[in-house]
Amino acid sequence: MIVVPEKVIPNLIDRHVAFNAVEKVFAAMSNGEACNFPVIREDIGYADALYGFKSGFDKAGMSLGLKSGGYWPGNEARGLTNHQSTVFLFDADTGQVKAMVGGNYLTAVRTAAASSVSIKHLARENSKVLGMIGAGHQSVFQLRSAVEQRNFERIIGWNYHPEMLSRLEDVCAEIGLAFESVTLEELGAQADVIISITSSFAPS
Amino acid sequence: MIVVPEKVIPNLIDRHVAFNAVEKVFAAMSNGEACNFPVIREDIGYADALYGFKSGFDKAGMSLGLKSGGYWPGNEARGLTNHQSTVFLFDADTGQVKAMVGGNYLTAVRTAAASSVSIKHLARENSKVLGMIGAGHQSVFQLRSAVEQRNFERIIGWNYHPEMLSRLEDVCAEIGLAFESVTLEELGAQADVIISITSSFAPS
Repeated sequence: MIVVPEKVIPNLIDRHVAFNAVEKVFAAMSNGEACNFPVIREDIGYADALYGFKSGFDKAGMSLGLKSGGYWPGNEARGLTNHQSTVFLFDADTGQVKAMVGGNYLTAVRTAAASSVSIKHLARENSKVLGMIGAGHQSVFQLRSAVEQRNFERIIGWNYHPEMLSRLEDVCAEIGLAFESVTLEELGAQADVIISITSSFAPS
Repeated sequence: MIVVPEKVIPNLIDRHVAFNAVEKVFAAMSNGEACNFPVIREDIGYADALYGFKSGFDKAGMSLGLKSGGYWPGNEARGLTNHQSTVFLFDADTGQVKAMVGGNYLTAVRTAAASSVSIKHLARENSKVLGMIGAGHQSVFQLRSAVEQRNFERIIGWNYHPEMLSRLEDVCAEIGLAFESVTLEELGAQADVIISITSSFAPS
């Protein structure tokens, strides 16, 4: 039985490892060698929490298991991440549990990898402008991973709370890319690739 | 984080603890304080295994979590139980995982408790004859728990493979009750309480 606590995960994997893993499992799904099972996501009627599971089996990589957890909006006030998840892996030959792995950082790099795998395989080769809708916690993971797939020259962004765009601006400064805050209409007109990374239920 | 391995569970709980817990959570469900979430059970296309989850939240007892595992028919040949499951519990206030508990023995006593809670609350007080359909691994758990709910005088049993009924006969001898192998028709005609504990998909 292997237990990998959340705090050590960022030292064990990075976005490149996540990219390669997600690209491989997408290919396995396309070949019928991997599948997801139905998602459970339930309002538990307590702490405003949503709780559930995402699970699947990758026969190509022999990974069987699930991610369980959810969204606890009161966590931030306690100094915890609102999204909490834990990954449980099982032996596909016996059904016995074999590992428990902190799932918060994994979720962040997995989500970014899914986005950047799609850019690698679907975006125009000469894409120059990346448009970001959303500037929350997850947005910087999407941004850092996306810019490694094309030679973007400019990042443009829109967020419902414009003051949060400084988060994207800081990352762009760090990686040497121009950043500009734009309207949603400008973003739609100018971007070659658009990443929508928001939990909003309304368009704007 | 608490890890409770399968091998120590039978030393920590017994069928009476399970009975009380199941009776309480059934009452909580009836009051709307506890609920189950949808069950996932999937053919993974490997090792003839069925894999899935049962999950729920008991607000009265503040238990949130799931049981994951399934049925691996090749396990018996490896010296393992075909049914394999592990319970994962989460903190309902934060969504963080808090315990991992071996689920095989728990499943056995939980399944028996659900049956005997129904006998306690629904069977006629003067029930004298208990009829058992099925004589597999789980049947003795059902039998031991059931006989504590009424003053049964006789146990009658039927199984597709009659030679397996010796398992029930042995337990009856141990607890001082008469056992008789009967036909399904006799069982239906004579039993005051019938426990059907079989994984068969066909009636006989």
